[in-house]
Amino acid sequence: MKPNFTLRLRVFNLNCWGIPYLSKHRADRVKRLGDFLNMESFDLALLEEVWSEQDFQDLRQKLLPTYPAAHYFRSGIIGSGLCVFSKHPIQEFTQHVFTLNGYPYMIHHGDWFCGKAVGLLVLHLSGLVLNAYVTHLHAEYNRQKDVYLAHRVAQAWELAQFIHHTSKKADMVLLCGDLNLHPKDLGCRLLKEWTGLCDAYLETRDFKGSEEGCTMVPENCYVNRRELEQFPLGIRIDYVLYKAVSGLYISCKTFKTTTGHDPHSGTPLSDHEALMATLCVRHSPPQHTSSHSHGPAERSALISVLREAWTELDQGMAQALWWATITGYVIGLGLLLLALLCALAVGGGIREVAILLWTPSVGLVLGAGAVYLFHVQEAKGLCRARAELQHVLGRAREAQDLSPESQPALQPGRQEGDRAEEQ
Amino acid sequence: MKPNFTLRLRVFNLNCWGIPYLSKHRADRVKRLGDFLNMESFDLALLEEVWSEQDFQDLRQKLLPTYPAAHYFRSGIIGSGLCVFSKHPIQEFTQHVFTLNGYPYMIHHGDWFCGKAVGLLVLHLSGLVLNAYVTHLHAEYNRQKDVYLAHRVAQAWELAQFIHHTSKKADMVLLCGDLNLHPKDLGCRLLKEWTGLCDAYLETRDFKGSEEGCTMVPENCYVNRRELEQFPLGIRIDYVLYKAVSGLYISCKTFKTTTGHDPHSGTPLSDHEALMATLCVRHSPPQHTSSHSHGPAERSALISVLREAWTELDQGMAQALWWATITGYVIGLGLLLLALLCALAVGGGIREVAILLWTPSVGLVLGAGAVYLFHVQEAKGLCRARAELQHVLGRAREAQDLSPESQPALQPGRQEGDRAEEQ
Repeated sequence: MKPNFTLRLRVFNLNCWGIPYLSKHRADRVKRLGDFLNMESFDLALLEEVWSEQDFQDLRQKLLPTYPAAHYFRSGIIGSGLCVFSKHPIQEFTQHVFTLNGYPYMIHHGDWFCGKAVGLLVLHLSGLVLNAYVTHLHAEYNRQKDVYLAHRVAQAWELAQFIHHTSKKADMVLLCGDLNLHPKDLGCRLLKEWTGLCDAYLETRDFKGSEEGCTMVPENCYVNRRELEQFPLGIRIDYVLYKAVSGLYISCKTFKTTTGHDPHSGTPLSDHEALMATLCVRHSPPQHTSSHSHGPAERSALISVLREAWTELDQGMAQALWWATITGYVIGLGLLLLALLCALAVGGGIREVAILLWTPSVGLVLGAGAVYLFHVQEAKGLCRARAELQHVLGRAREAQDLSPESQPALQPGRQEGDRAEEQ
Repeated sequence: MKPNFTLRLRVFNLNCWGIPYLSKHRADRVKRLGDFLNMESFDLALLEEVWSEQDFQDLRQKLLPTYPAAHYFRSGIIGSGLCVFSKHPIQEFTQHVFTLNGYPYMIHHGDWFCGKAVGLLVLHLSGLVLNAYVTHLHAEYNRQKDVYLAHRVAQAWELAQFIHHTSKKADMVLLCGDLNLHPKDLGCRLLKEWTGLCDAYLETRDFKGSEEGCTMVPENCYVNRRELEQFPLGIRIDYVLYKAVSGLYISCKTFKTTTGHDPHSGTPLSDHEALMATLCVRHSPPQHTSSHSHGPAERSALISVLREAWTELDQGMAQALWWATITGYVIGLGLLLLALLCALAVGGGIREVAILLWTPSVGLVLGAGAVYLFHVQEAKGLCRARAELQHVLGRAREAQDLSPESQPALQPGRQEGDRAEEQ
């Protein structure tokens, strides 16, 4: 590779809002998305909420000449909704399904049935290894009273850990997706601090698109404006994040979003805005170097966000155990009721009523049993994330206590093996 | 690091058979296991089936002076049963819970409730990075008619993929655990071929222990001899597997198993035998180099085992879809029955009977619905593993079609970035 080598990478990301029967103008939007992707010929198009596998197959057929490689990430009952189209061959792919993803009895929210996940693609571009990740975290239904907060923080942590452990030998890391997190939200900060990923919107000098880079805007006719009441400009929850490893530099040359309208005509492509980034990978620093040092300031930012996440997971765990206890009592009461009904039926007292109440009581015990088991499992999942987090926190504190120069053992976003190469 | 540098690593593995209330002499065995581990002072002790977290805490307390680092991997409803004690600091840890792990309605088998997983520990030893994995796959209850075969093959694949993607920058990889797979079983071959891991029992020149390295032997008083009827010497299902990356060489200096008795006195430590391996890591090849070339023969072995696994997963998928279809019909019938009962109750015909049958019918529909959703999810999980496998198979075939010298793009057990370093 020449010293003045530059790799340009054009990336597209969109949450497609492709819910069969429910999303408006789905077929038309999928068709226009295909046309747009074909015309623009990105290196990589990463999509979320492609819930119908048939939509993916239709797109695949249509995009085959421009994007010969494609993959649909299957998981859960409905699917992860994630898929990818690539101009370059995909060397490897795999996925990680998040341990916690909402509650099965919240059927109207549906997230639990999706099997939300992170998909990984390994691509070889001009001799460099690119690990590209696509993900979609649990939706936020009520920002004021968010019962899914602990789950989303746990998902952000699992996502960060998956990237951390699978990208150690990659030259470049790219993460696109709908994080359902505002830029200052705990999960977003946790993810960025622990992986060292940069936000394309914040890094670029050439941005065109919606105000403040919002990815759900009131101008979009598919967006429920009441949900954006508190955010008159919209919200930014979809991201293109990246980092380079091992002596490379990535910069975001241009970053564009759609602005609530179709790029050409007609209705928008989705209720979310599409993101388009042009990334440049170089061996020498770009003219405007982004200030990502890994000094004590970054370490203390990591410690503070880890501590905050720890508290959130701890509260989530307490909540899960509370539910497990309550349902435990309900099971006990149900069993007592069953015993009483059996006695009544045998004793002959009010036999008909007893027999009539028997099956609902069995249902109550079984239902409460299932909810009990679910919350026990939830508590275990949160406890697991908290333990991993606590370990990282402990190591970050150790590194902070020692001199930052002599002990770069834990640098946020750096990977342990890199040190030798960098020194 | 000096050129004649040698790192010795003493490793212990045991499936502890620690089921509260059910496993015989549990408290006594845990106590003796602690004494033994303290006395032997291994570098790393990896344990499975420590189902009670209290047992782990007791062991942790006891082993603290000899093994300052420890971790218990929490998952599922009961837990993964996996834990680890280390003489050296644990730099990082994480885990991956297997997507497929039996059926929730097979309550008497219990695997589904455990949340079987693979745990990863990253250790830094003498400047080298060791990725140590501990795992426990789904049990085999009936070898002749194994309904869990597809799940175990999918688990072996997920395990192999997790190791493949997380160990790319490690210098050494170690996998210990109860695979519930005989050495020639499909899952075991798939794991070894795709990761390139070597079997300590087969590699060592100094083996002491049970005949043919068996890890469940009829001499063990806790083993149900009827289950070993077909295998008079016992079976080998627990493993110590390893590999070195980037110019290092690992050899297994000594390998020992217990032989159905306590190492000192009393009853055995578990119904499984303990494994003890001394591994030597060097920069130069050991005297007896193991013959792990990565030529066309290995590639065709990989292709053949991938093809076999593909077929198994495909059959599993067909089975899952068959169950989904059957339960779909049951749901339909249940709904018809419900409509009929409503009509009868309203019409006044046989009102009491109709009301009496209403709740069991609702139960039938809900139960069948849950089973239906489970099998849809199972089919998705198998389909996902099959897709990953098919991709690797395609790439292996491409590599085979081209000249093996000019195209070492896919070498079983090698990681793509290694090539440059090795050439």
